Amino acid sequence: MSTTFGERLLGVFEASGHLCVGIDPHPYLLQQWDLPDSGKGLREFGLRCVEAALGQVGILKPQVAFFERHGSAGYEALESTLASARGAGLMVIADAKRGDLGTSVEAYAQAWLTPGAPLEADAMTVSAFQGVGSLTAPMLLAREYGKGLFVLAATSNPESHATQTAIVGSGENSTRTVAASIVAEVNMSNEAPLGSFGVVIGATVRLADFGLTDGDLATTPILAPGFGFQGAAFDSLRATYGGAAANTVVSSSRGILEAGPDGIRGAIAAQVAELARAFAQ
Amino acid sequence: MSTTFGERLLGVFEASGHLCVGIDPHPYLLQQWDLPDSGKGLREFGLRCVEAALGQVGILKPQVAFFERHGSAGYEALESTLASARGAGLMVIADAKRGDLGTSVEAYAQAWLTPGAPLEADAMTVSAFQGVGSLTAPMLLAREYGKGLFVLAATSNPESHATQTAIVGSGENSTRTVAASIVAEVNMSNEAPLGSFGVVIGATVRLADFGLTDGDLATTPILAPGFGFQGAAFDSLRATYGGAAANTVVSSSRGILEAGPDGIRGAIAAQVAELARAFAQ
Repeated sequence: MSTTFGERLLGVFEASGHLCVGIDPHPYLLQQWDLPDSGKGLREFGLRCVEAALGQVGILKPQVAFFERHGSAGYEALESTLASARGAGLMVIADAKRGDLGTSVEAYAQAWLTPGAPLEADAMTVSAFQGVGSLTAPMLLAREYGKGLFVLAATSNPESHATQTAIVGSGENSTRTVAASIVAEVNMSNEAPLGSFGVVIGATVRLADFGLTDGDLATTPILAPGFGFQGAAFDSLRATYGGAAANTVVSSSRGILEAGPDGIRGAIAAQVAELARAFAQ
Repeated sequence: MSTTFGERLLGVFEASGHLCVGIDPHPYLLQQWDLPDSGKGLREFGLRCVEAALGQVGILKPQVAFFERHGSAGYEALESTLASARGAGLMVIADAKRGDLGTSVEAYAQAWLTPGAPLEADAMTVSAFQGVGSLTAPMLLAREYGKGLFVLAATSNPESHATQTAIVGSGENSTRTVAASIVAEVNMSNEAPLGSFGVVIGATVRLADFGLTDGDLATTPILAPGFGFQGAAFDSLRATYGGAAANTVVSSSRGILEAGPDGIRGAIAAQVAELARAFAQ
């Protein structure tokens, strides 16, 4: 049997820790890095991030939106970035937040998870506004190819609270919050020690607000954005995720990228050390 | 002042009716059309759809997922399709279902709604899993450029029901369903006779199941997928949408596309006539 995404993720945690560098080529960062706001600039930005990550972290997370701004030229830049990262043995989570039904969402999964596809990544973020059941095809595809998914569940922004804490009125997860029902449905396909189907839970949320406990996340990979620029400090990891902190992919973007092309290696090293201290506490 | 998307949409309804041809290049359709499953095949498929639509309908809706399967080559094909359609005066709704926060979702809006951008469309579909408030930047951008948005609200697939009918427990829309709260928040930016911020409501739903009435949709553009292949008949339009049927973009894809490259013009003509009869009833 081939290795599952969950098994590979555990290996990365052990070998390289939990830090994930977000590749977010904001227009203001391109300017700060003295790069043009174009496909060419995006490619250069992406490749320099990969280079700076090598030997320091095991996971990268490109934010697809910033590449999509430049259409096909942006996607070419992303393809180069993905190929460079994966060629060097780094794990890549495509932060695409795709969601749809049936053959459409299957096409998105084919785009990002099929071995040999131009945009092949190791995992992608997806949205279950149309139900976790709408993600059956991506889950089957991920399992087949040893890939992972991270389903949006509880995000940090206050305006998401009303939807994500709304109470489900029918079906198996009746009386649970939308976020908790997503976690429950995703976990149906996960096995100990760590499954391949993760969730996105922002670093500044309180699990209890969504009717969740860390026990609900015992076998669930967690993509945890919101550190640094968005307000959370690494030493809040255990307070936020409890025992499930061990399952977190800790994503940091602007706090690293704003160090600029000359400072990025050092900024990553500093965050790796800081995160290791937070885990050792 | 420039024309708003809502005003332009009303003009299209008057001049060309409500039918919207979905451009969904499924792999099985490419094969049926004798086209390769590649960027080149996608481009040919898209351009032939545009050609067949000319003089018959006013709106096209490419499903972005099927283009994304081929990465940058797929996006090049989509760019050609968009340019051809918009150059010929057709309105294009990019069915992208994008959603994210802050500068990321703003980047998606820039990708699809900025005049002159390689992927410029007239409107795009978006997802509010992170709250309608997370879509503020796209809404501002749409208003600035006379573009439109269609926010997922109540979709046809049964597995979406639990989330979309969940009851909001806090904020202004407390006790409403998730779908109804999305409609209410979207409408805050709409004005009579027709706003620029629409919703996606599947053709096989019952509004009452989501706590909605047609009166809630009086000024709301409605993207209505699910006709033909997915089960709804045009003559159910009034039963489903009531008075708001006048605001519907009636989307049909496979029922048209399966007619093949030689039959597609005739298939569109037949559906235009059938839809006109449904509206005349």
